[in-house]
Amino acid sequence: MFRKLLTLEQAQRLVHQKIKPKPVGLEKIEILKATHRVLAEDVTAKIDIPPFARSTVDGYAVRAEDTFGAEENNPIKLKVSGTVPIGEMPKIKVTRGKTVEIVTGAPIPEGADAVVMAEQTERDEDTLRVFTSVVANANMMKAGGDIKKDEKVLKSGTFLGSREIGVLAALGIRELLAYKVPVVAVFSTGPEITNPGQTLLPGRIFDINAYSLSAAVLESGGEPICLGVVPDDFEKLQKTLKRALECADIVLTSGGVSVGPKDVMPKVLASVGTPGTILSGIAVKPGKPTTIGLIGNKPVFLLPGHPTSALIVFHLLARPVIQLMGGRKTTVDQTVKALASAKMFSAKGRKTLVMVTLKQDKLGNTLAMPVFSGDSGAITTLTKADGFVIIPENVQFVDFNQEVTVHLFENKR
Amino acid sequence: MFRKLLTLEQAQRLVHQKIKPKPVGLEKIEILKATHRVLAEDVTAKIDIPPFARSTVDGYAVRAEDTFGAEENNPIKLKVSGTVPIGEMPKIKVTRGKTVEIVTGAPIPEGADAVVMAEQTERDEDTLRVFTSVVANANMMKAGGDIKKDEKVLKSGTFLGSREIGVLAALGIRELLAYKVPVVAVFSTGPEITNPGQTLLPGRIFDINAYSLSAAVLESGGEPICLGVVPDDFEKLQKTLKRALECADIVLTSGGVSVGPKDVMPKVLASVGTPGTILSGIAVKPGKPTTIGLIGNKPVFLLPGHPTSALIVFHLLARPVIQLMGGRKTTVDQTVKALASAKMFSAKGRKTLVMVTLKQDKLGNTLAMPVFSGDSGAITTLTKADGFVIIPENVQFVDFNQEVTVHLFENKR
Repeated sequence: MFRKLLTLEQAQRLVHQKIKPKPVGLEKIEILKATHRVLAEDVTAKIDIPPFARSTVDGYAVRAEDTFGAEENNPIKLKVSGTVPIGEMPKIKVTRGKTVEIVTGAPIPEGADAVVMAEQTERDEDTLRVFTSVVANANMMKAGGDIKKDEKVLKSGTFLGSREIGVLAALGIRELLAYKVPVVAVFSTGPEITNPGQTLLPGRIFDINAYSLSAAVLESGGEPICLGVVPDDFEKLQKTLKRALECADIVLTSGGVSVGPKDVMPKVLASVGTPGTILSGIAVKPGKPTTIGLIGNKPVFLLPGHPTSALIVFHLLARPVIQLMGGRKTTVDQTVKALASAKMFSAKGRKTLVMVTLKQDKLGNTLAMPVFSGDSGAITTLTKADGFVIIPENVQFVDFNQEVTVHLFENKR
Repeated sequence: MFRKLLTLEQAQRLVHQKIKPKPVGLEKIEILKATHRVLAEDVTAKIDIPPFARSTVDGYAVRAEDTFGAEENNPIKLKVSGTVPIGEMPKIKVTRGKTVEIVTGAPIPEGADAVVMAEQTERDEDTLRVFTSVVANANMMKAGGDIKKDEKVLKSGTFLGSREIGVLAALGIRELLAYKVPVVAVFSTGPEITNPGQTLLPGRIFDINAYSLSAAVLESGGEPICLGVVPDDFEKLQKTLKRALECADIVLTSGGVSVGPKDVMPKVLASVGTPGTILSGIAVKPGKPTTIGLIGNKPVFLLPGHPTSALIVFHLLARPVIQLMGGRKTTVDQTVKALASAKMFSAKGRKTLVMVTLKQDKLGNTLAMPVFSGDSGAITTLTKADGFVIIPENVQFVDFNQEVTVHLFENKR
């Protein structure tokens, strides 16, 4: 009956060694669909930016040497010989003693090598008085002064937010290569669960996990296919798992993995292909009855039926795989330091995760208050916990007022 | 020519007073579409959770008093009279001296008031030896022990992450009332800009803002409609703005607001309806040439053409309006403390935002390194900045090694 369970760290290493999660593929997408996708190519500038020398202010394009000696009490005079149009290359030239009006963003005309800001001039018809001297390149940007042609601008693997999307647009890119979003099929099983929205028969409860896990998949950069509740029947589960493996890159199930006589899911997993189970049971509370398998190159996570356990195991073991298969970096947990508001006990010989709520006390300390619940199935645990404290295998308890590290749930806002 | 510009704080107050941003509407949505939406109703439990007393362990349902005095060296014996099925209400009863096998989640049979864990028993056919005494309610949860019928579980305004979705499922909710996602039309104008993907004529540059702002709208919980580049022509701009106001709740434009002769957008805004302009120019660098208006109850933000300015002004003034119109809370900036790696100067009399890159030095200090760029139009500013340091109106500079607060851009990962 007794067998040594893997520690969390051993389980995490094993998952990476056996599954070797890598991106499921690449696809061309439009820039307008690229927000929060991951770039799958190095992006190199095909053009200089700006493509031509341009003014960065409204003012007058000049030969810098013509302004030499100009100051507030001793302006120099230049003749305004025209205006540079914006949006086309100027035909007008600037020669000695002459200047041309220019707006921000307009190309610097031939002959000019600097711009004087309008605020530092006074104009009377075609006579301009300049009250400051400027050096060459003042108030302008040379061609390629921002980004040079052939410069690498964004690296493959970059997560695309509004600023990166702006950079791609600047380079004239309308379509880009992105990592495909991994498709994750999700279903629950158990003789006592019913899909929300259906009639609840006596002795039954509504399913939580297919829905919370589908949301968690989205939050991890995957595309969930929620198959809802599948009856606790070997053949129906086998059929559903086969179908899930056909349409998805990853499968998540919950329920049917307890150590009782009802542990149907590992048998279903073993029946659909090879190599099959790679991990069975982890020394973590909650989360012990977790089975992980591989069918072909598709990972299958059989998570516990208890909602908090299912989400925690998802967080610790499945999410990094989904992220890597989507070309993303695995996120490091956000943590905060807090003081334990009560003694927290560990489960014998198992790494124990204690769900906690964060609260400020009157002295400004952050307190970690254990969420009271005898049951990792309790829904109140889900609503109240801001994160969890990890008690290592070899520690019996965390004392009152002891400093703890709280691993935050991501979606807390 | 000179007029006193509003400070950023005055502008932010004015926007809230005049626009009075409120949710654009409510809609029924499916729970599977509800991730990262905002709940628009208080959710009350229609049922007890659990709906019946259930076991939280695998073991044996007992009358607690029958186990009294049992201990490791002195087990008491009970007769196993059957098994509780899971997923239906048990017909079997527990009477004095008897017990019934039960799995996690199964309903507690009549007569029993506690459960003994299987690990603390030994069974031989229908004889069970119990090695521990249990108190009433041990290892079980009463009906409503997690959530009571009529209890308020989630409040209107709650942002729905995976855990909240799980709670809704637990309550049997398939459809919920959510705040509508505000639709935001976005376009750019300027004689020098061209849509990415098109041929770049001499003297032109690719548009950035319609694309970066569309992405920023998505990141703020809005649905962007990107109209791309509109030629710098009064009638075309007027037609586009009218169309944008018909199909969207909010309009964002960029370009055509500089103080030069080309400030066409404020005129276009004034021509399409009332009350029109509510704010023109702010004492912030970058971002000064910003105009904000209201047509009917629809806010119109005319942002500067410079990409960094446009995104910063969006962040400071438009984003909170989009968030409130989507029923969201306005996000407070995430900030970090850092040491200035160089002297940073402010623009005279204007609140100045200096874009900075964060870096760790060898001593473990976080340094804020100003992004060098003479031009808020530079794309490199967008790629390199992790956030910005605010220099107040009445401060001339921040000194080398001085501690500064860096306001982080949200999408940094």
